[in-house]
Amino acid sequence: MSKYEEYEKKMKKLADIGHSIAVLSWDKEVNLPKKGAAYRGQQIATLSGISHELFTDESFGKLLNELSSDPTLDQKAAKNIKVTLKDYKQSTRFDEEFVIRKSNLVSAAYHAWLKAREDNDFASYEEALSNLVAIKREEAEILGYEDHPYDALLDLYEPGLKVKDLDVLFKDVREQLVPFIREISKKNQVQNDFLHLYYNKDKQWDFGIDLLKNMGYDFDSGRQDIAPHPFTITFSAQDVRVTTRIDENDFANMCWSCIHEGGHALYEQGVSAEDYGLPTGSAISLGIHESQSRLWENHVGRSKEYWEFHYPKLQELFPENLSAVSLDEFYKGINRVEPNFIRTEADELHYHFHVMVRYELEKLLISGDLEVKDLKETWNAKYKEYLNVDIPDDLQGILQDVHWGHGSFGYFPTYSLGSFYAAQFFAEAVNQIPNLMTKLSKGDSTELLSWLRTHIHQHGRLYEAAELCERVTGEQLNFKYFMEYARKKYKEIYKFA
Amino acid sequence: MSKYEEYEKKMKKLADIGHSIAVLSWDKEVNLPKKGAAYRGQQIATLSGISHELFTDESFGKLLNELSSDPTLDQKAAKNIKVTLKDYKQSTRFDEEFVIRKSNLVSAAYHAWLKAREDNDFASYEEALSNLVAIKREEAEILGYEDHPYDALLDLYEPGLKVKDLDVLFKDVREQLVPFIREISKKNQVQNDFLHLYYNKDKQWDFGIDLLKNMGYDFDSGRQDIAPHPFTITFSAQDVRVTTRIDENDFANMCWSCIHEGGHALYEQGVSAEDYGLPTGSAISLGIHESQSRLWENHVGRSKEYWEFHYPKLQELFPENLSAVSLDEFYKGINRVEPNFIRTEADELHYHFHVMVRYELEKLLISGDLEVKDLKETWNAKYKEYLNVDIPDDLQGILQDVHWGHGSFGYFPTYSLGSFYAAQFFAEAVNQIPNLMTKLSKGDSTELLSWLRTHIHQHGRLYEAAELCERVTGEQLNFKYFMEYARKKYKEIYKFA
Repeated sequence: MSKYEEYEKKMKKLADIGHSIAVLSWDKEVNLPKKGAAYRGQQIATLSGISHELFTDESFGKLLNELSSDPTLDQKAAKNIKVTLKDYKQSTRFDEEFVIRKSNLVSAAYHAWLKAREDNDFASYEEALSNLVAIKREEAEILGYEDHPYDALLDLYEPGLKVKDLDVLFKDVREQLVPFIREISKKNQVQNDFLHLYYNKDKQWDFGIDLLKNMGYDFDSGRQDIAPHPFTITFSAQDVRVTTRIDENDFANMCWSCIHEGGHALYEQGVSAEDYGLPTGSAISLGIHESQSRLWENHVGRSKEYWEFHYPKLQELFPENLSAVSLDEFYKGINRVEPNFIRTEADELHYHFHVMVRYELEKLLISGDLEVKDLKETWNAKYKEYLNVDIPDDLQGILQDVHWGHGSFGYFPTYSLGSFYAAQFFAEAVNQIPNLMTKLSKGDSTELLSWLRTHIHQHGRLYEAAELCERVTGEQLNFKYFMEYARKKYKEIYKFA
Repeated sequence: MSKYEEYEKKMKKLADIGHSIAVLSWDKEVNLPKKGAAYRGQQIATLSGISHELFTDESFGKLLNELSSDPTLDQKAAKNIKVTLKDYKQSTRFDEEFVIRKSNLVSAAYHAWLKAREDNDFASYEEALSNLVAIKREEAEILGYEDHPYDALLDLYEPGLKVKDLDVLFKDVREQLVPFIREISKKNQVQNDFLHLYYNKDKQWDFGIDLLKNMGYDFDSGRQDIAPHPFTITFSAQDVRVTTRIDENDFANMCWSCIHEGGHALYEQGVSAEDYGLPTGSAISLGIHESQSRLWENHVGRSKEYWEFHYPKLQELFPENLSAVSLDEFYKGINRVEPNFIRTEADELHYHFHVMVRYELEKLLISGDLEVKDLKETWNAKYKEYLNVDIPDDLQGILQDVHWGHGSFGYFPTYSLGSFYAAQFFAEAVNQIPNLMTKLSKGDSTELLSWLRTHIHQHGRLYEAAELCERVTGEQLNFKYFMEYARKKYKEIYKFA
């Protein structure tokens, strides 16, 4: 066996363990009986421990170091070694004491968050969160950075992403999106009451399945189930599962979460199955992942053309709700813009203000310029400033997201990044694929999917996000594509002069 | 950490891996998308390899050996060490060459069996099966035995079970059950056509769930799903899952498989949760496991008293099929005795002839007194002799069971053993629990379950099967309890003078 084959064998073994953990986690969300949680947690922890031990094994580091200076490796193999060596160095940077201490603080913070939510009381969460922020600052120092400590944490979710890039992006958001939404708010509001009538669960389920099939999601390589929070999870490129939830009084809940998760899943089903376990057989980053879900959810799934095909079928399924609602009214309703408190329920424009608030707060927390005791006040002030809303209580404010309670700082920005990548990729797809929108209006997204497969999915981590963006679109990530999309769409919906 | 605590920690880690494999296997049977099989097989193999490596680690052997002569251990701890040391020795007896060779032969045999079934042609399976028999003979030699090589294989499924015991049991079967069934066959046959009318799937499902709840199966520590072959699987005592299948033209299929798996599951839910991973937290043997499923399936679930309570509800659910069928007719119908070809569809009396055929054949194969080339002829002859049926083709004959294709020789006898244990345990339960049958007729099996918990479930592997039987019933396994049960029941059903 060559050294590279030895590397591949080890990576596939690690992938088997990682995907086994994924199966256990999926089952936990989808199937677990009430009392099964304790041992399931322990089983996942045991497999995680075994995986960490195997991955951080010194002999593996030695192998990676040797391979990293092997001039005979081809581009793909060399990239795999480079990425794995980086991951290896990151994993071995922390000693056991730190790992256990952090794990305990995360666990304490998560439970404090749950408790605080029960009581709708952020104050009771402050101490645990404060300890967590402290160790995340420590983590950033251990990981190292050039300009800003937050860069070290961003890199965990979006390799290469830096504060200086995000500051540019969010400056654009502030300068361009804020005034645009202000303009929209002066126009007549569009109606969407029809989305909140009674939509039978089974019929919604069937409709969601049909949408997934129509997108090209392969049910021979996956399945959909019900879970409290929709997610996509991968056990191999040939077993990528999605989940959704159904609210009988909110059609939007199921519908766009199906399309969103479908977008994630198409990415995962589209990576090279034979590169199982290798970086080139894995998704690049959270931002690029989100670009795929958002592209399908918003650029496809909230376009008029998409519904030209699907709306008649939906009307047929729910005539009692929709027979009197025209396609135009439906299209406007599903794109209604209005400020709200909860990120996950935001429209596609306000959404980025929610992310921006968290980005600014995280940056301040990690640099030490903001302490947790002042966090809530700052949160509420920023919501007032960007969204012009008064946060009524902690549940609808600072306690809404679990991310911090999971120790995830640096994660939120990838949501916006994904949307901006999506806009830029989709603009390019429209350029390159003749009559794409007309094809979508006929229910045909096969060329779009094959374009995404060719330009994005199949490469896995062969390119970094920024590099991929340049290869696909000819330029660096640029907010203008999102703004152009938003202006064109919403000026029509809100009848700008 | 004391050495015993070290042992416990290791065992719990191994249990975590084993139960993770179980989750992956369950998911494979219940949920797997078509293309997901290849990587799932690999994931299970990787975890199995890790588990084997951890278990057979020399340092663990050393620890076990040390603990096995530690006089300070209490009875339970000492038993755990004794059982684990035996398992350890068994696992370390085979070198890697043997393990790989056997695994390849099993895999080849399994695929040959699948293929042979497709073509209804045993001949194409002969070579692979023959190779498998050869390595099982080798395995028996490596494991070692005193009297008969088959003893070594029996011990893998039913520790302590020997040919000399089984010969006594099956002699009883031949001498007592054969003539009794012959007598039955001369009586007027009872009718069961009503079981083969149309029974709606959803209603069957709900009824099955109700039966499980009524037995005391805890749905907070388990769940039921649909699978091609019903089975019970354990991820911890607090997550024990059952599966069933539903045939809309065969009510019996779902109903008694639900009760049967429910019996297995009650055992698994009843072992000590805090002994997770230890022998004292695991089931004793396949025979004792089967005693629990058979006890509920036959002694409870095919008794008239049980249906006194449940039948009115079933009639209400399916009036179109059952309103004209009296409880007495129903009871007789579900206990109809007639010879057939397929083991899994046999009545509770003929069932043991099916097992006896396999037992006799396996014994001859492993001792070298029968070769695979003569196997089919012998099979067909024994079916003629014991069941008086002419096997029409291989699918309904020698190809029906997967066990040999899995390399499982020594497994079948535990099915009969289970039934005989069940009869003996149930006779004792009837002795000890005042008015048990009357309680069952009122839908109340709580005392029976608590009796089983106290006398059997909670001990795990603290006692061996034979030892447990003596403790619970005051004597060794004795076929007479089964015969007494059968005589009493079927003489009434078939109106013996």
